[in-house]
Order: sequence, then C-alpha cells, then structure tokens
Amino acid sequence: MVKVGIMGAGSWGTALALLLHSNGHEVTVWSISEEEVQMLSEKREHESKLPGVKIPEDMIFTSDMESAIKGKDFLVLAVPSKFTRSTARSMKPYVADGQIIVDVAKGIEEDTLMTLSQQIEEEIPQADVAVLSGPSHAEEVGRGLPTAVVIGAKTEETAAYLQDKFMNKVFRVYISPDMLGMELGGSLKNVIALAAGIADGLGYGDNTKAALITRGIAEIARLGVKMGGSIESFTGLTGIGDLIVTCASVHSRNRKAGYLMGQGMSMQEAMDEVKMVVEGVYSAKAAAKLGKKYDVALPIVNKVNEVLFEGKDPREAVDELMLRDSKTEHMTLKW
Amino acid sequence: MVKVGIMGAGSWGTALALLLHSNGHEVTVWSISEEEVQMLSEKREHESKLPGVKIPEDMIFTSDMESAIKGKDFLVLAVPSKFTRSTARSMKPYVADGQIIVDVAKGIEEDTLMTLSQQIEEEIPQADVAVLSGPSHAEEVGRGLPTAVVIGAKTEETAAYLQDKFMNKVFRVYISPDMLGMELGGSLKNVIALAAGIADGLGYGDNTKAALITRGIAEIARLGVKMGGSIESFTGLTGIGDLIVTCASVHSRNRKAGYLMGQGMSMQEAMDEVKMVVEGVYSAKAAAKLGKKYDVALPIVNKVNEVLFEGKDPREAVDELMLRDSKTEHMTLKW
Repeated sequence: MVKVGIMGAGSWGTALALLLHSNGHEVTVWSISEEEVQMLSEKREHESKLPGVKIPEDMIFTSDMESAIKGKDFLVLAVPSKFTRSTARSMKPYVADGQIIVDVAKGIEEDTLMTLSQQIEEEIPQADVAVLSGPSHAEEVGRGLPTAVVIGAKTEETAAYLQDKFMNKVFRVYISPDMLGMELGGSLKNVIALAAGIADGLGYGDNTKAALITRGIAEIARLGVKMGGSIESFTGLTGIGDLIVTCASVHSRNRKAGYLMGQGMSMQEAMDEVKMVVEGVYSAKAAAKLGKKYDVALPIVNKVNEVLFEGKDPREAVDELMLRDSKTEHMTLKW
Repeated sequence: MVKVGIMGAGSWGTALALLLHSNGHEVTVWSISEEEVQMLSEKREHESKLPGVKIPEDMIFTSDMESAIKGKDFLVLAVPSKFTRSTARSMKPYVADGQIIVDVAKGIEEDTLMTLSQQIEEEIPQADVAVLSGPSHAEEVGRGLPTAVVIGAKTEETAAYLQDKFMNKVFRVYISPDMLGMELGGSLKNVIALAAGIADGLGYGDNTKAALITRGIAEIARLGVKMGGSIESFTGLTGIGDLIVTCASVHSRNRKAGYLMGQGMSMQEAMDEVKMVVEGVYSAKAAAKLGKKYDVALPIVNKVNEVLFEGKDPREAVDELMLRDSKTEHMTLKW
C-alpha cells in the first residue's frame, strides 16, 4: 500500500482514483472546486462525470493542495490540458525532490509547442515526471472493463514502480521510455479524430474513415519520428490504439465536433453544441505549426485547419484528400 | 478504354465491375452459375449481394470462361478464397503469356500455407499476378463512397498500369511492391477481427477492442515481417486500415461470428447463424501453423484457436490475454 494524490476530479481523475483504491492504495483526490469536493464527499458518486459508479467511503476529497501532495508516494495530474501549466505552478511549493508526477492528460501548448510533461518539468523542475496514455475511456475503466495502457517515464525504475501500482486484473500496463512519442501521438490523434468525425458527418462510410485513420496516423508518425519520438509509440496503444478508440466512440468530443461540422455547422457552433473542451481544435493549430517547423507534409492536419479556421467546405476538404496525387503508399518501398 | 474480364459475380466482383465500367472500360463478368448470369443480365441489379445498385445495360455477363478471358487487357479474380485455386486451374488454358490477373480475395491455404497469389502463380505460371487490397466494403464502393486501396504487383510497370485503370474521383489507388505483406495482412487480420468480435459479444467495451486490435496487428506484423513482408503493409491500408474497417462493421462476417461466440454460441452454431464463409476461422488455423513454422509468438491468434477448436471459454481467453506478463509494450525500445 502506498499513498497517492490525484490532482483533478474529472472523469479520468475519478476513474484512476477508483482503480488505485481498488488496488489497495490510500487515495486523496484534490479538486480546485470546493463545491465538487463537498458533492463527492457527501454523495460518493460523480453523478455528472461518472454516473452509477460508487466511490468508497475511505477515499479522501480535498480542495487543499498541500495536503493532497505532501507525503504522497506519487501524484497523478489529471486536470484538462489547458490548466496543466497553471496547476503545476501552484503545486510547485509542495512537491518534494524526486516526487513522481504522472500526467494523464494530453495536449500541446500552442505558443510554445511543448507537450504537457515538458510544461510540468519546466514548472516543477524537482519532480520526476511520467505519463500514462492509451485507449482508455474513463467510463469503461470506472466500470472495470479490460483496458491496456502504457506508462512512460525517464527511468525504467520509475516506470516499473508505477506499473506495479496501476496494474490489476482488468487494467494492463505496459512501460516505455518514449515519453515524447507517447505524448505527441496522444495529442495529435485528436486532429485525425476530427477529420474522421467530419467524414462521418458527411455521410461517408467506413471505407473513408478507415483510410483517414490509417493515413492520419502515418502522417502524425512522420512528424513525431522527425521530432525524436519512436515509431512504435505511433503504431502502438498510445498512437493507433488511442485513435481507434476515439474514432469509434460516440462519446468522443473530438469525433462529435467533427461530425457536427460535417453536417454543416461552423467550428463555433459545433464547439457550443459539444459544450466541452474540444482538444483537437487546439492541437490542430499546434500540429500545423509543428509540420512547418519540422518540414513534414501533413495533408490531413492542414485540411482540418482549413475547415476549422478558413471556412473551407468539409466535403471539398475530404474529396481533395481522397484525390491527392496517387503516390505509392509507402515512399520507402521500392521495386 | 481497355477490356476487362471479371471472374466472379459476388458483391466485390460486381462492385469492381461497376467501378471499372464507370471509368470507361469494357467489362465482361463471368460467373460459374448460369442462373446468376441470367438473373444479372435480365434484372440489371444484384438484388441479394448489392441491392439498390443499378448495373449498366452494356455490361456483359457470361458463364463461358473462355470468352471472359481471351482478348482481355487484364482480368480480376474475385471468387471466394476457397475457390481460388480451382478457378485458376480452369482458367489456365485461356490465359495468354503475361496476361495480368488481379486477385481481390484474401486467404491462406491451410495445407500449403500459400497466399492466393502464390496459388494462382502455381496454377497459371504464364500470368502476371497482382493483388488489390485495403479497407473496402463492397457496398460502399458500389455506392460510390470515397475509398482508398493498394495494388501490389511484381513490377512497377504493372502496378502503375492497373492504378491508372482503377483510379477515379472516389477510388484512390496506391501501389506497392510488397504483395506478400499485403496478402498476409489481409488474411491474418480476419483472425484478429474474430477476437475483437468475441470481446464485443462478451459486452466488453471500446478499450478492450482497441487493445486487441492494436496488439493484434503488432503480432501479425511480427509474423509477416519474419516471413519477408514489409512492416509498412501492416501499419498501412492493407493491414491496420483493413482491420479497422472489419472490426467497425456490423456486416463483417468475421466480427459477427466472433460476436456470437462471445455471446455463448459454439463455432459451428455461429457459422450456421452467419450463413456465409467465415474466412477468419480457416485463417486462424493457418496463422497458428505459420507462427510455429516461423517461431513467432502469436498470443491472440493462439487464444482464438483455443476458443474455435478446443472449447475454451471466450471470457477466460480474453481475460488471459489482458493479464499476460506486463512486458514493455515494445521490446525494441530501451531506456
């Protein structure tokens, strides 16, 4: 048994808190919202974000950051990506030298083009930052359905330590040294999920969607590998695996926002309808910038940006993608 | 305009006949069934296999093999895989030296472990055999929905020639020299689709399915690369792309048979219910044999075989797969 502090009481933070508690660990969950802390302490269920899943009586909820961090064997940072940097900054005074922080959100900062772990390291230099990623709907983890994820860390020791704490009968954990590739895959896949959603919204079929997903992961991988990530992170659970789960889900905000745009809504109308942060919209801009910076062709990412920010007709965008030069599928394969 | 002979009037053969006709080519379709030829000639619609899609008046249907082959610029072989060898044997006397035959079915012969193109080459040594594969439901191609596939051939010249004939506004064709990898990916993916269907039938969620698909393509790729295929064929349209479309589809026979077994049916009951050839059941045996022959660990393939042929409980099989040793996801990535 170890002590864990979970920063953030959204659906993913709550699901992981339940998982770690069921593994026998002492879990404290921090939320910035006093109201949320009270509600969770009293109702013992997150009715809006994880309905129907009971929260054990001995799980502690607090809005006091210090008590959620101090003396904990490791921390899980589960706030939405746009709050990662500010939350890390607030956490800094309480984090001990070498204390492990596992980031479980995904995103790229538009201005700095930094991944979330890079932002956390910049804000909390004394922390040992790790990441957890893979195809994992929070609701399904909350319900105990079999799930496989990857934990990436700077040392094999930290990765193996965390693997041991998270792993159980229904939650399988692999480990990897490639934090960068994992984070790029997890963020950029949301842009491809938007494209797949757009195709769905246009009434195109499974063939179109499968082509966009497959070509999409290939272009993301080209970029990620050029940036220093490993190809395996893009062809594995944290790349194609995560993308498949996102594109298959009717719950995915990225897919849904794309779907609504395919049906004729503007980006703003789609965002208003989805009512939650659509990560892919922010990542789309960052991805396009990265493509330019690293000189990698990103046809799908660029078309998504045109649809999002330049009023491009979605049908034209998909048709143009399908009609591109008929180059050999894999430029590396020669006769 | 060129002359094309399509061997086989199933849903895929008919959809490709329509595609090539719409590209301005003269198309003759052969079927072994005189009844089917009459029906198609008169009704100008394949009511059972491609309902609602009109067949042009100038498309020729025949049960005379010689007239469908002789003088044609290229042939498309679209019979189910278990009839590929026998059909090729019947075609041999009429095939000219260097005449191109594009195989569009998928499968591995259980006894010989040969791919379909290898079987065709053995039966018709004078032919120039090529393959067409990728995420392509026949119904969607028949309805003109955007689709991307790969054509593999022994020479770039043949591949480029075929690409030019098949390609149009909604049907994008890439080319590849890796026929073996394409064919292995297309056949073996049906075994993984069975596993994904079983997980669905058990009521497991998207997380489980995405994990099985991702781990599945990885194990198939390990085998295929050891056999001489290129990794790109497994991470591209003919591997993961085709697998995604199969696992997403409610129409896929492989996924459906798996689903029914997950719900408690035996293999035979599931096969009877699906009423059509379930390719993955045959490929499962061949895949397991290939794994032994090439000394490659195939955990998902082996569990599927246990469920199919040894009465293994599907829930136990999936649970065991999710609970395997927590090895690093990618054995090649080191700290």
